[in-house]
Amino acid sequence: MAMVCLSDFEAYAKKYLPKIAWDYFAAGADDCTTRDENILAYKRIRFRPRMLRDVSVMDIRTKILGTEISFPVGIAPTGFHQLAWPDGEKSTARAARAMNTCYIASTYSTCTLEEISAAAPGGLRWFQLYIHRNRAASQQLVQRAEVLGFQGLVLTADLPYTGKRRDDVRNGFRLPPHMKVKNLERAFEVCKMSPSFHSLLWHVPHETETTGLDPSVTWNDIYWLRSLTRLPIIIKGILTREDAELAVRHGVQGIIVSNHGGRQLDEGPATIDALVEVVEAVRGRVEVYVDGGIRKGGDVLKALALGAKCVFIGRPALWGLAYKGEEGLQDVLRILQDEFRLSMALAGCASVSEIGQHLVQFSKL
Amino acid sequence: MAMVCLSDFEAYAKKYLPKIAWDYFAAGADDCTTRDENILAYKRIRFRPRMLRDVSVMDIRTKILGTEISFPVGIAPTGFHQLAWPDGEKSTARAARAMNTCYIASTYSTCTLEEISAAAPGGLRWFQLYIHRNRAASQQLVQRAEVLGFQGLVLTADLPYTGKRRDDVRNGFRLPPHMKVKNLERAFEVCKMSPSFHSLLWHVPHETETTGLDPSVTWNDIYWLRSLTRLPIIIKGILTREDAELAVRHGVQGIIVSNHGGRQLDEGPATIDALVEVVEAVRGRVEVYVDGGIRKGGDVLKALALGAKCVFIGRPALWGLAYKGEEGLQDVLRILQDEFRLSMALAGCASVSEIGQHLVQFSKL
Amino acid sequence: MAMVCLSDFEAYAKKYLPKIAWDYFAAGADDCTTRDENILAYKRIRFRPRMLRDVSVMDIRTKILGTEISFPVGIAPTGFHQLAWPDGEKSTARAARAMNTCYIASTYSTCTLEEISAAAPGGLRWFQLYIHRNRAASQQLVQRAEVLGFQGLVLTADLPYTGKRRDDVRNGFRLPPHMKVKNLERAFEVCKMSPSFHSLLWHVPHETETTGLDPSVTWNDIYWLRSLTRLPIIIKGILTREDAELAVRHGVQGIIVSNHGGRQLDEGPATIDALVEVVEAVRGRVEVYVDGGIRKGGDVLKALALGAKCVFIGRPALWGLAYKGEEGLQDVLRILQDEFRLSMALAGCASVSEIGQHLVQFSKL
Amino acid sequence: MAMVCLSDFEAYAKKYLPKIAWDYFAAGADDCTTRDENILAYKRIRFRPRMLRDVSVMDIRTKILGTEISFPVGIAPTGFHQLAWPDGEKSTARAARAMNTCYIASTYSTCTLEEISAAAPGGLRWFQLYIHRNRAASQQLVQRAEVLGFQGLVLTADLPYTGKRRDDVRNGFRLPPHMKVKNLERAFEVCKMSPSFHSLLWHVPHETETTGLDPSVTWNDIYWLRSLTRLPIIIKGILTREDAELAVRHGVQGIIVSNHGGRQLDEGPATIDALVEVVEAVRGRVEVYVDGGIRKGGDVLKALALGAKCVFIGRPALWGLAYKGEEGLQDVLRILQDEFRLSMALAGCASVSEIGQHLVQFSKL
Repeated sequence: MAMVCLSDFEAYAKKYLPKIAWDYFAAGADDCTTRDENILAYKRIRFRPRMLRDVSVMDIRTKILGTEISFPVGIAPTGFHQLAWPDGEKSTARAARAMNTCYIASTYSTCTLEEISAAAPGGLRWFQLYIHRNRAASQQLVQRAEVLGFQGLVLTADLPYTGKRRDDVRNGFRLPPHMKVKNLERAFEVCKMSPSFHSLLWHVPHETETTGLDPSVTWNDIYWLRSLTRLPIIIKGILTREDAELAVRHGVQGIIVSNHGGRQLDEGPATIDALVEVVEAVRGRVEVYVDGGIRKGGDVLKALALGAKCVFIGRPALWGLAYKGEEGLQDVLRILQDEFRLSMALAGCASVSEIGQHLVQFSKL
Repeated sequence: MAMVCLSDFEAYAKKYLPKIAWDYFAAGADDCTTRDENILAYKRIRFRPRMLRDVSVMDIRTKILGTEISFPVGIAPTGFHQLAWPDGEKSTARAARAMNTCYIASTYSTCTLEEISAAAPGGLRWFQLYIHRNRAASQQLVQRAEVLGFQGLVLTADLPYTGKRRDDVRNGFRLPPHMKVKNLERAFEVCKMSPSFHSLLWHVPHETETTGLDPSVTWNDIYWLRSLTRLPIIIKGILTREDAELAVRHGVQGIIVSNHGGRQLDEGPATIDALVEVVEAVRGRVEVYVDGGIRKGGDVLKALALGAKCVFIGRPALWGLAYKGEEGLQDVLRILQDEFRLSMALAGCASVSEIGQHLVQFSKL
Repeated sequence: MAMVCLSDFEAYAKKYLPKIAWDYFAAGADDCTTRDENILAYKRIRFRPRMLRDVSVMDIRTKILGTEISFPVGIAPTGFHQLAWPDGEKSTARAARAMNTCYIASTYSTCTLEEISAAAPGGLRWFQLYIHRNRAASQQLVQRAEVLGFQGLVLTADLPYTGKRRDDVRNGFRLPPHMKVKNLERAFEVCKMSPSFHSLLWHVPHETETTGLDPSVTWNDIYWLRSLTRLPIIIKGILTREDAELAVRHGVQGIIVSNHGGRQLDEGPATIDALVEVVEAVRGRVEVYVDGGIRKGGDVLKALALGAKCVFIGRPALWGLAYKGEEGLQDVLRILQDEFRLSMALAGCASVSEIGQHLVQFSKL
Repeated sequence: MAMVCLSDFEAYAKKYLPKIAWDYFAAGADDCTTRDENILAYKRIRFRPRMLRDVSVMDIRTKILGTEISFPVGIAPTGFHQLAWPDGEKSTARAARAMNTCYIASTYSTCTLEEISAAAPGGLRWFQLYIHRNRAASQQLVQRAEVLGFQGLVLTADLPYTGKRRDDVRNGFRLPPHMKVKNLERAFEVCKMSPSFHSLLWHVPHETETTGLDPSVTWNDIYWLRSLTRLPIIIKGILTREDAELAVRHGVQGIIVSNHGGRQLDEGPATIDALVEVVEAVRGRVEVYVDGGIRKGGDVLKALALGAKCVFIGRPALWGLAYKGEEGLQDVLRILQDEFRLSMALAGCASVSEIGQHLVQFSKL
């Protein structure tokens, strides 16, 4: 089977992953409307390609928070990579380093931050954080990440509770016994999900009550995080101009426009639609990124044209891992890189700096 | 089979109910366009969720006409509950009370008002009224309801004649011999429906001529009702700003925006679309509710964001009954409650009072 | 099989008519986009129904050009009724008279005007005319119709040449040998259609060259028609405000907004959309009617709300004939009548005079 | 099988061509969104047909760059006609001449320009050029074309690199050994395509590096071309008003609005949508043509109504060749001609000069 485009990897993963793992990665909240909208919304955007510009020398590099990456596509934080490939996040880290791009490691990794760091020394990595009720646990995670050379701290803001993903509930999703959420000190017990009241708080794998995620987090906690670390803080999960303004005012260094892959509140906006509103509100004061729905190089070009500094891929990275571990993930990134470069050239841009809003328009449809 | 969301109950009911009963509950008028639009219209509304608000303590209670209910979802009036479950409306009343919400009992119940009251003493109930040609019959019903402790009178305004529901005509729908529309004094004969001229007047089960529904009812009859009872009057079936204004001027205490589940005039507006126009016209002078198309907690949140004080569910309640009687209906209500609470939290609202129009926008699609 | 709505008759006709006849009646030009749009466009219009109006006494009668009909639905001109039922147009005439409505007999009838008149004396009938190259032939037809008591002359304006209906070309459609286009004096030879250049002029059944339809007809020919007869002239096939203005200026008494059932120019407007523009241009100076896409009583109500004085049905009348001749056509008309009356009542109108534009809005979709 | 409309030829070609050839001709870039949009966009345009205009004498001739053609449809440049029919471009040239229209011969022909000229002396032909890294090779081609009597030079501007056509990559598309890209002096080696980085530059059949296409071409190269030949220069691949303005300023004689059949940048605009913007920018200073998505005579009429002087067909011409060589292509052209003439007549236009923007409107859908 030739792996020509990202959907080839998706088909492979759907065929070869255990159903419970595939379902977990594929899951969207409720009717999966937002999950699917993330993709459909890209199709409503039309390019306005320019011709006869010298595109013989292509430069697709960019910088995020001052660090150069080979092209504006990084790896979004997703949990439980061992469900996709035995080496789990270690393979992810190696692939990202090999392709010279950024990997955002999740709190819910099945390898420790230390293992991830050791697997790919020198790679550009950010650490994704959930704030726990047990603040000491979160503080420890932040400080471990900083010590290990992670270069950014990504605070996920859209998960005070876990979204309702029907298939996970049906499957009674839990991690296999030999996998652990190793980053959390206490034993991490994966509870069976249920649609009961209890499920509001604990729809998905979670720790015991005392170390559970903290739904009382507010903007002021940004200041608390700030006090813990010198790492730049990137906030993930912003979808409105109002929150974008708050993020800037609270001193974050970056914003990831995200709806958690459509896994949290169903029927929120597609991220590429929300990006427009966030970029407008931010007015260049901090960097803005986007994840969700990226399936080909042209999507990356659209996101950049609408103001994203970089995009992050979630599920496609997992498909790559499922295909061949770090090699498979590199294949995915390389295809996206080739497609992005080609799209840029065909749109008349020789370097990332030439990409702008003039390149796109929203379809009348 | 795990019952995870409302469509699981729908699938169950479709599989286990007699076809003639399923068809009757599922029926929409003519091409069923409005029935289906009620659901589709919700999908065209997008949330604008807000992040990092303290949602650790959730309060989903609300009040309707001054009485507190556990969450803003009540039971809409629908007929013939014994078609779904042997105990019929008695089970419905018990489930509503158990969940501490409001049940609007239909004139076309297969239990008497007295039986319903006795089944769940102390529950919050409103009584739904059709005005009959024989006004004394209607008067007697209103006064029985008031004596029995019903706390509101819901006048259905959209059924001067019964809509044309093709499957009911094909099935020759009639109640099984052992069921009766017990609330009406005279024997209630269920006539076979036909597509003839006669069918305009009597498309569906009806009484003898002298007690038939009165198609000459006008706004002045609100004053007549007012003279019969001290109960608050809620008018059900309003879809336009003009009629909303008339309702307020004629002194009703509440309006239910409804198209009778798409069973009356086909190709009228979806109720969630009509809600916007009605809320705008009413300007807070009376409470506005909505029914039709509610299938998950997020739909409830959208309706409240657009100005509804509470929503009412029709078919989903019947599916719950069909599944396990009062227990099944409680399951349905509990799922909606959990989903509504989760949607609120993920949208950044800790209490119903924080829900507002800023939470939603209409999709460009 | 219960005949509950018009699509039941369509299914019957599709099943029992010879394929070549079904295809001929069902045919649309080219991709059949306009044929299908005629129906879809109705679905984009939403009612704004009004409640609590006294609809106990319903009056659905109307007048067209001064003559009362039982409800605002007439029979549009279509050819070759013997393809649907042995008695052909004689049955059509009888059914129309029985239902007290107007029948527009086509030039391309398989019965003579004399036979039609004799079959249903006293019925309200208009005669549909194509202008032939041999003007004497057309003149004779007009004068025969007037003598026979036809009360209107309908000039079809949208067929200078016949549209390209692919199935008819594939089928090599021609009339069976025992049927004739009896109204035309000369023997009417049905040529095999071909997609050649020749087919531009003669795509469908036609006479010999000298009596063929005249593609040089212009607005001035209205004056010529005027000179031949005292009958009111109704022009059929108008789709733009410009032509509506010209029609009024040239002294016609009525306009039928029509796209020939989508059989002429594909991808012109749906008739219900064109109606809005024509009604606006005409400003009440002459009566405006519409045909195409009417499939239920609600469609009739929408057309009247948008300014049509009456609608005409084409294919549904043929389905009725195919079902049971004049009895079947009466069934079709009776169902439409019942549905129209019910739609009016549910929208809050007790008589045709209460129908207005306030009843409808165009869907955002 | 009756060949009634263009899709009949498409079905034939899909059935009888080798899969690899069919896939190559049918291919679109990436998700094929733009390829399909080219067709769908026509369906969103509605005619506003005018009635009762004398259309007895139809004149469908037009002129392009001063030369009369029998109707406003020419043959767009496409490669490798021997994949469709043994005689390849010689058959194409003969069919175009027989139908008295213009054929744009591709650089990537499987016959030489000399063979094409000899096959149909006196036919109206333009030559399509890619500018190669080896400028001498391009210069030689231009000058050969001029000497051979080609009357226009069409510069393709939208292929600095080849688009990613997934099926071609999967098929490892290459020309069969007995076919050559004869116009290029050096042996033309067809490389296997791969999705690697390399594939950005050489996704499709290409020459060796030194004669490869030049991605550094800019607007200034128009002046270089101008210096090589007295032929009018037509630029192909313009999709924006900005580039249209640049084209005019750089002295081209014509613009072909094209997205290369959706084979280059996916999710650019449909050509008929881009035509509107280009025509507006050009303001009549040069002739504007369009290709992509033309499937019936009505599409031609729409393109002309929106300002195109002439349209060009790509895939339909190949389907005609695949059916019966030059005879099959003539069939295709003749059907388009008949359909175009009929559409004009039914829209009320007797000659091309009467076609204007008043004939069309964009659908609300």
